[in-house]
Amino acid sequence: MTAKSSNVVWQQGRVQREQRAAIFNQQGATLWITGLSGAGKSTLAFQLEHLLTQLRYKAYVLDGDNVRHGLNNNLGFSMHDRTENIRRIGEVTKLFADAGMLAIASFISPLRKDRSFVRELHRQAGLPFVEIFVDTPLAECERRDSKQLYAKARRGEIQDFTGISSPYEAPEQAEIVIRPDTAPAASAELVLAWLREQGILRSQ
Amino acid sequence: MTAKSSNVVWQQGRVQREQRAAIFNQQGATLWITGLSGAGKSTLAFQLEHLLTQLRYKAYVLDGDNVRHGLNNNLGFSMHDRTENIRRIGEVTKLFADAGMLAIASFISPLRKDRSFVRELHRQAGLPFVEIFVDTPLAECERRDSKQLYAKARRGEIQDFTGISSPYEAPEQAEIVIRPDTAPAASAELVLAWLREQGILRSQ
Repeated sequence: MTAKSSNVVWQQGRVQREQRAAIFNQQGATLWITGLSGAGKSTLAFQLEHLLTQLRYKAYVLDGDNVRHGLNNNLGFSMHDRTENIRRIGEVTKLFADAGMLAIASFISPLRKDRSFVRELHRQAGLPFVEIFVDTPLAECERRDSKQLYAKARRGEIQDFTGISSPYEAPEQAEIVIRPDTAPAASAELVLAWLREQGILRSQ
Repeated sequence: MTAKSSNVVWQQGRVQREQRAAIFNQQGATLWITGLSGAGKSTLAFQLEHLLTQLRYKAYVLDGDNVRHGLNNNLGFSMHDRTENIRRIGEVTKLFADAGMLAIASFISPLRKDRSFVRELHRQAGLPFVEIFVDTPLAECERRDSKQLYAKARRGEIQDFTGISSPYEAPEQAEIVIRPDTAPAASAELVLAWLREQGILRSQ
């Protein structure tokens, strides 16, 4: 028999998920907000980030602003590029969730197959994926039209505009559905309650 | 004069960086570990993640394991793809740092221009970028050769292998240089001390 060293050495490896959860006071997870342009996704995303941060949880919004101009600035709007756009965002949210964060993704993400792909990525990694459907009807989004995008799309000045000239496939089994005319603060509270119920947020 | 509503409403916007730093007890930052294959990058990365986590700081390792098989699984090893590999990783570390995390990137990243690009990304965003050069000489890396990669490269079974058949451009102004034969635990302590000195880590 050869004697093995009895020195206690740290075994190289990643920090365990439970250790991370204890420090973050939350389980890492992805909150995926989907809906039409103008539905209120960004408003909900930032309201939620604000609310969670006030409670000292660790959340971060990924949206067109910080992704399309950075990581995905070499992608256009062809079908291929849209799918690659969502794939990369899905992979990044997975890394955030694995790191212990609440990744809040706010993207139209109109295709069921693209969202299913991201859900499956998380499932395989044992990470919670929470699909949040902001269910504001097209007519209402078009009535608001704060960026005048629907008007442009109707005039044909924007091609492949979701809801007008490109499909939006509503989720069939979203974990959370935000009904039309729910105030942003109420929507955020609703998501918060759900996250607590699921044990994703731990009590302080 | 028209009367403005006096309701105090929450202004939509991202959580401020200082608010994040207070909750995370640290400034978000990227620790970019570069060096030859076998230099000890991964060992340092995980040792550092372990040490920081024990102290309740929030750190996460990005490496070949969780990036090449996910976000960058559609990239090969051509010069173009290597540059795109580092670009995407750079963008992701920037998102992590912006979120308040310590992103620990462990990649050979042999080209000065690619590392400079990532540094510049962070500079523009006002986020600390800490280049850590694990300065183990080629001869020593080749002597270790734990994965038998150098042997294969010498026999021509691996093309474009950094240090053998592809250049490694050592950093000229790395924030931290890990001298050969520094024990991993000592290297991690050295980085920790530096982060404290810079105020990136706050006291508990």
